[in-house]
Amino acid sequence: MAPGGTGVLVDMRGRLLSEVAARPQWAGIEADLAHLLASWFNRGFLVLQRIDWRTPALVLEKLIHYEAVHQIQGWDDLHRRLDADRRCYAFFHPALPDEPLIFIEVALTRGMSASVQALLETDSPLVDAESANCAIFYSITSCQAGLRGVSFGNLLIKQVAEDLGREFPRLKTFATLSPIPGFRNWLTETAPEHPALLPVLEQFDAPDWHRNGAAATDRQPELTRLCAYYLLYAKNGHEPLDAVERFHLGNGARLERINWLGDTSPAGLLRSAGMMVNYVYHLGDVERNHEAYAREHRVVAARRIEAAARESLLGQRGERQPATNR
Amino acid sequence: MAPGGTGVLVDMRGRLLSEVAARPQWAGIEADLAHLLASWFNRGFLVLQRIDWRTPALVLEKLIHYEAVHQIQGWDDLHRRLDADRRCYAFFHPALPDEPLIFIEVALTRGMSASVQALLETDSPLVDAESANCAIFYSITSCQAGLRGVSFGNLLIKQVAEDLGREFPRLKTFATLSPIPGFRNWLTETAPEHPALLPVLEQFDAPDWHRNGAAATDRQPELTRLCAYYLLYAKNGHEPLDAVERFHLGNGARLERINWLGDTSPAGLLRSAGMMVNYVYHLGDVERNHEAYAREHRVVAARRIEAAARESLLGQRGERQPATNR
Amino acid sequence: MAPGGTGVLVDMRGRLLSEVAARPQWAGIEADLAHLLASWFNRGFLVLQRIDWRTPALVLEKLIHYEAVHQIQGWDDLHRRLDADRRCYAFFHPALPDEPLIFIEVALTRGMSASVQALLETDSPLVDAESANCAIFYSITSCQAGLRGVSFGNLLIKQVAEDLGREFPRLKTFATLSPIPGFRNWLTETAPEHPALLPVLEQFDAPDWHRNGAAATDRQPELTRLCAYYLLYAKNGHEPLDAVERFHLGNGARLERINWLGDTSPAGLLRSAGMMVNYVYHLGDVERNHEAYAREHRVVAARRIEAAARESLLGQRGERQPATNR
Amino acid sequence: MAPGGTGVLVDMRGRLLSEVAARPQWAGIEADLAHLLASWFNRGFLVLQRIDWRTPALVLEKLIHYEAVHQIQGWDDLHRRLDADRRCYAFFHPALPDEPLIFIEVALTRGMSASVQALLETDSPLVDAESANCAIFYSITSCQAGLRGVSFGNLLIKQVAEDLGREFPRLKTFATLSPIPGFRNWLTETAPEHPALLPVLEQFDAPDWHRNGAAATDRQPELTRLCAYYLLYAKNGHEPLDAVERFHLGNGARLERINWLGDTSPAGLLRSAGMMVNYVYHLGDVERNHEAYAREHRVVAARRIEAAARESLLGQRGERQPATNR
Repeated sequence: MAPGGTGVLVDMRGRLLSEVAARPQWAGIEADLAHLLASWFNRGFLVLQRIDWRTPALVLEKLIHYEAVHQIQGWDDLHRRLDADRRCYAFFHPALPDEPLIFIEVALTRGMSASVQALLETDSPLVDAESANCAIFYSITSCQAGLRGVSFGNLLIKQVAEDLGREFPRLKTFATLSPIPGFRNWLTETAPEHPALLPVLEQFDAPDWHRNGAAATDRQPELTRLCAYYLLYAKNGHEPLDAVERFHLGNGARLERINWLGDTSPAGLLRSAGMMVNYVYHLGDVERNHEAYAREHRVVAARRIEAAARESLLGQRGERQPATNR
Repeated sequence: MAPGGTGVLVDMRGRLLSEVAARPQWAGIEADLAHLLASWFNRGFLVLQRIDWRTPALVLEKLIHYEAVHQIQGWDDLHRRLDADRRCYAFFHPALPDEPLIFIEVALTRGMSASVQALLETDSPLVDAESANCAIFYSITSCQAGLRGVSFGNLLIKQVAEDLGREFPRLKTFATLSPIPGFRNWLTETAPEHPALLPVLEQFDAPDWHRNGAAATDRQPELTRLCAYYLLYAKNGHEPLDAVERFHLGNGARLERINWLGDTSPAGLLRSAGMMVNYVYHLGDVERNHEAYAREHRVVAARRIEAAARESLLGQRGERQPATNR
Repeated sequence: MAPGGTGVLVDMRGRLLSEVAARPQWAGIEADLAHLLASWFNRGFLVLQRIDWRTPALVLEKLIHYEAVHQIQGWDDLHRRLDADRRCYAFFHPALPDEPLIFIEVALTRGMSASVQALLETDSPLVDAESANCAIFYSITSCQAGLRGVSFGNLLIKQVAEDLGREFPRLKTFATLSPIPGFRNWLTETAPEHPALLPVLEQFDAPDWHRNGAAATDRQPELTRLCAYYLLYAKNGHEPLDAVERFHLGNGARLERINWLGDTSPAGLLRSAGMMVNYVYHLGDVERNHEAYAREHRVVAARRIEAAARESLLGQRGERQPATNR
Repeated sequence: MAPGGTGVLVDMRGRLLSEVAARPQWAGIEADLAHLLASWFNRGFLVLQRIDWRTPALVLEKLIHYEAVHQIQGWDDLHRRLDADRRCYAFFHPALPDEPLIFIEVALTRGMSASVQALLETDSPLVDAESANCAIFYSITSCQAGLRGVSFGNLLIKQVAEDLGREFPRLKTFATLSPIPGFRNWLTETAPEHPALLPVLEQFDAPDWHRNGAAATDRQPELTRLCAYYLLYAKNGHEPLDAVERFHLGNGARLERINWLGDTSPAGLLRSAGMMVNYVYHLGDVERNHEAYAREHRVVAARRIEAAARESLLGQRGERQPATNR
């Protein structure tokens, strides 16, 4: 009832979450707040807004602050991300004006993007939006720690895909360009049982290994196959080990392509061995894919990724993955 | 999640409420919806909007439709109620655009209004708002049957009183001009035990009794005293029998004045014997009054109303009412 | 520079115009104001706004006040004119907020309307706008006497036709339903030289002549032919005598059809002998038609109207009208 | 009439002005455009808008681009200039959306600012706006070359002063902090006739002369007196030689104080010998001051500036300046 009360409760839950491990007696109130906020932040109350260069600086500044996936290097970087061949959308709640809850950054491209650095260059060439055939979701950021567990991302991706499809009838492909945040860690943890992996790991010790053309090229096929194996067979219980993969498959997306050196930033090299994945959202299939995933945790993937996984150093261990269509 | 879903649920509860008596198996879902709607329609999400002649016709038309206390006789009547010496405010919810939840009509006057017909005349003289010293809340209407029990009226009155006080620093009195909807019914039901009341009741049989000057004037003192008695001593359990009185006393208002022939409309004559009450909201006292009412059901009333009640035909039956300040 | 100054100058010119005949010494300042207002109210500054049931009552009330062609009988009448199968647009100027300069009322219909009463009935059946193939401009009203001679109507019709064509791709015909305000007057003035017209004029003396089925039907052919003759051959210098005709032909419209008993209101009977005309705006032809009219005052008309004129009582007097295409 | 036509004409005049010296045959069309634009950009059509951190980035970016007096060093610098103790306002024209015509930057301060660098520091301490007693206009920038000669600055200063006075009743002083752009040039041109000025000029040859404490302090009294002399007696015809001075005196401001080392930027040192002036706008006096200036070119100045001028190296040459009040 007090003015600004909604924001105070969201922040309060953010603080509770960050300390609840140390103070288990707070778990009850955290759970109550989670229940309340899930009711208050239901989809019917959220407002989708386009973010562009007409948006108040007050809000734009927050995007710079919050962007977690590919950090925004100041206003020029932001301006490029809001240019004529880009789109950015956010959900807002009427009781939290000027405060984005989640936002997504989209590039309109010809062909499915394989490298995020190519998109992020502030002097990257402008694409004529009318002629684009792909919409690449290259970043999605949740802004409010206090709304953890209140899921908006799925809804945001689908509504944006629908809106863009209406605005640009030539768009044929809606796909992400996503990190594989657990890949290198998994390699390291798997190596002790699989000595064949050791030379693969060693290459990462060389400084700037990815820039060393010949050596890098040599390693590409095996690393790509291992990545395919990781995405298809590395599990946590019945679900994929990779958190980003779980999110998109759970939404009904399809694992479409692995991109060698898709992200050569320090973080990209460290966590994803420089690789990125395209998850494709085909609006006609997401419902069925989502069902398949929800019921059987089936990883809907392109044939060539399944083939690559089978040919990897680790062979066909893992549980059998039933063939998927196409 | 579906577009318009909030409105659908409000309407659904409206229908459930209207039929739950006949179908008791619906009580559970009605209660669940009541809980959900109380969470969704909390004060933090409501938006107070001024309604005036700039408001879209789409919304104004709904006021004409919903107004329940003093029916609006078309657009000319509405225009007078939105003129320069009037104010109208409504609460809206962001998920129900163009749909008022509750609205209040206010007249800025010199002196505390005693007759609602004087306010409602479409050709009543315009008061210079800057010189007004009273704000008279002469109608408050809840619009959504499906939100019954989710209380907005108290908040609306207080916020409007605060806003008006800021806009017009000369306003000294914030008061309602309210019906006494249970008065005549109570008279009828009480008469069998109190034969002295019979002549009072008989007068109502005469057509246009209130227009018959001499007769009406004769009856004024006794009817006014009985009305005071009713407001102070007629109870339902510990609470006043009169629903409008319960609402305003519960909000912390004070029973200030009884107005003979304050509402001579057919409905006013039928239910309130033509009388109206001013309940005064003195923002410095509402908290204390509210507490006194909540704890002891004390009816905070002006001295002269207490005196009138004691002198009525029915004398001092009822439970003793402790003296109130001023 | 003073606040509201623009409106004051518009009103001042309105007063000057109404009195300049009596006070010729005011002509100079009137001309200066006309020059200034033509500069200030140039098309680049005008804002086209849709008027609908969401428009503030403040503005809607002015439409009721200003509508000159087919008077608006209160709010219910207005509501029908703004319903889902109607459109209304107005030009506003940023320095005159809430003050329409000119507005146009459009009905979306199946087939080209022949009767304005059928459109104006408040209980006329609603047409599904998506299935309409005609947009009928049935009223266009200039609101500001002080802007006489600053022409907006032409621009308004064309921009509205373009906007509607984009919103409703099925619309094939953009046409007016217009009065013929000089027709009866011309008949009366022409009769002395043409005794054959006398019986035609006499019929108008019968009360409710247009309701007298048989008699009215008898007269229809001849009256229609005379109307065609009037529109094609009655001149004021080189231009058509009829002011409405001059306006639409000057805009590049084409005289398409004469509608017997198209307007049976008292004013319609008195001025137009109950008849109305459809002028068609074919956006592909207006430029050429406008040129033909501007250069040679050619009346671009449908063949059947030319044929009817030739067969009228008055035969082919008038100047020869060269054949027009289609 | 064409969309964007107003902007095209403004730009066209801008280009004409920049080349008319070389192509005198363009003077006629330039003059016609000047007449038209003066009519179109009259005060009644301009919209005053506050610029703050809620303004679209699209507009803020233009301030960064246009600011001519004290260049804006990117978004952090701009943010400081729009913080809680600052105000920025611009005039816009409805036909040129998002395009500021002129903007003014104001600092709310305690005491009249003497140094612009102190205001421009991005980490300068925030003043509590409610406690400020001065509004310092420290920059005013005309944005549209094509509107040269269509004067907005005078109106902007006065309207902003009025609005601020209403918002912050504690503000007592409305003053500029202005450069003296012609001062050093005048010193150089005057020196040949006045050898006593040579040592003054020589000091400017020393690098960082203003940072050399002792030497700078030695020179302060004489430079300040010469500056007073320049402002009071250096003329171009009957008007002050200094363009900024002409503008503010013409508006009715009063020459209040000379600030030693008020602007130590390279441009400030080069043109104004590091000094700045406060011109005070006392709303009760501007009309009279403006009249005095318009009729007699009287330089309304504080007594101590007149005293300083008389004591300068150049003594009391120049025309006698009649004493001014206060």
